[in-house]
Amino acid sequence: MQLSEDQVRQFEEQGYVFLPSQFTEAEVAAMKADIPRIFAMDRQEVWREKDGKSVRTAFAAHTYSEPFHRLAHHPRMIEPVKQLLGGDVYVHQFKINGKEAFEGDVWQWHQDYGTWKRDDDMPEPRAMNISVFLDEVTEFNGALMIIPGSHKAGVLEAGHDLETTSYPLWTLDKETVARLADEGGIVAPKGPAGSMLMFHGNIVHASPPNISPWRRMITYISLCHCDNHIRQFKRPEWIAHRDFTPIECMADDCLLDLSRQPAE
Amino acid sequence: MQLSEDQVRQFEEQGYVFLPSQFTEAEVAAMKADIPRIFAMDRQEVWREKDGKSVRTAFAAHTYSEPFHRLAHHPRMIEPVKQLLGGDVYVHQFKINGKEAFEGDVWQWHQDYGTWKRDDDMPEPRAMNISVFLDEVTEFNGALMIIPGSHKAGVLEAGHDLETTSYPLWTLDKETVARLADEGGIVAPKGPAGSMLMFHGNIVHASPPNISPWRRMITYISLCHCDNHIRQFKRPEWIAHRDFTPIECMADDCLLDLSRQPAE
Repeated sequence: MQLSEDQVRQFEEQGYVFLPSQFTEAEVAAMKADIPRIFAMDRQEVWREKDGKSVRTAFAAHTYSEPFHRLAHHPRMIEPVKQLLGGDVYVHQFKINGKEAFEGDVWQWHQDYGTWKRDDDMPEPRAMNISVFLDEVTEFNGALMIIPGSHKAGVLEAGHDLETTSYPLWTLDKETVARLADEGGIVAPKGPAGSMLMFHGNIVHASPPNISPWRRMITYISLCHCDNHIRQFKRPEWIAHRDFTPIECMADDCLLDLSRQPAE
Repeated sequence: MQLSEDQVRQFEEQGYVFLPSQFTEAEVAAMKADIPRIFAMDRQEVWREKDGKSVRTAFAAHTYSEPFHRLAHHPRMIEPVKQLLGGDVYVHQFKINGKEAFEGDVWQWHQDYGTWKRDDDMPEPRAMNISVFLDEVTEFNGALMIIPGSHKAGVLEAGHDLETTSYPLWTLDKETVARLADEGGIVAPKGPAGSMLMFHGNIVHASPPNISPWRRMITYISLCHCDNHIRQFKRPEWIAHRDFTPIECMADDCLLDLSRQPAE
């Protein structure tokens, strides 16, 4: 699985590539089968919304869930990223964002690499995000909004917002977001569960609260070039991983294999 | 200006009719020209968001703004409503919802007639809402979501939510909204400024916060059949009007006329 020249060019110019239905329904079902167990866990990795109940994000699920372990080694995700980043990659962060029906809260306008640089001392933006939709994403359930081309702005000034949601985030000011959106517009890729969105670590993005009755669960995997590993270990290991071993891909049918087996 | 048979049927079956670009750019401009003055007013009708600054809604603007007075008498809005409600109508409520860029807050899932019945003792749902877009409404800036067909459910049980936003609202429980949306789906009519959305007083609707850098200002006019006027005067007069005089339409070019005149 390699991206086409057009897709590589789109990534360079627009900062993102969207691949609808990159994973099949059966593969998505194999992952979702483990969600009730994960979301019921009482552990620090499973971060709740301000209501104390709804799951905002489940960090590091690839370390305690077999299907998500396999996703983190899946060639249909890893190979295109190695192509774009030019070499071996490791998992810097892994999370399942719940964006629960009615309760899923906002993710404010931010850049991910800004955080990785400030908090984790990651040398360069040779790292990126890959989101895999676990539910259909529509205009109603809190689709991710991204500003095309905003990755070219470099690392923008940000403030540490400790109040808006249950999770602290380095967020951008209104003037900067407005200026970039007026220049580049906004897009919100939508598609069926199994779709995959790849975006540059410096892309400016946000997602609104989900007021709809339909959950919008997405897995976000942040992959970093192995040479570009973080230098500072201020954040917990389950938020910013310290194992810089190159990912070795599993077989293309590794998730499908799992879906064929009865759940244990 | 009369609705077609198809449009009347759609209103009866789906509970709404959407008329893109019902007003021209010049007519919208004539209304928007008065917005800075209105939103700067320090008066009880101009209701702020929780931040105490952004305008959430400006009630009764047709009583202190010439262009909005004219909108409230515009045949392109009044005539189709008289057709649907079968007779003379009066203005029960008039508001301009600011839904300001970045700051515009949620309107939770609710029915309007539920409030009119509980708070104002309006006898029957022979009243409806007409929204006129003052900005382009897109998938990004907090489009109104409505559940087609939900007006057939009658008045649903509701709780008085005094906490979520700065404005108290009778809101529906999650189970009811989920059931109705699973049956009827959700639609979010989008279109240029000047578009007009007409919906039944019992339609279930909501709008998400506006996290985009683009304002989404909409005027909502609630018109009621004159025979069906409210019986209880619990809410302030500027929220639930007590003048039941039938609206007499002005000329079709009344807004255009205004846009031709220099602002005073």
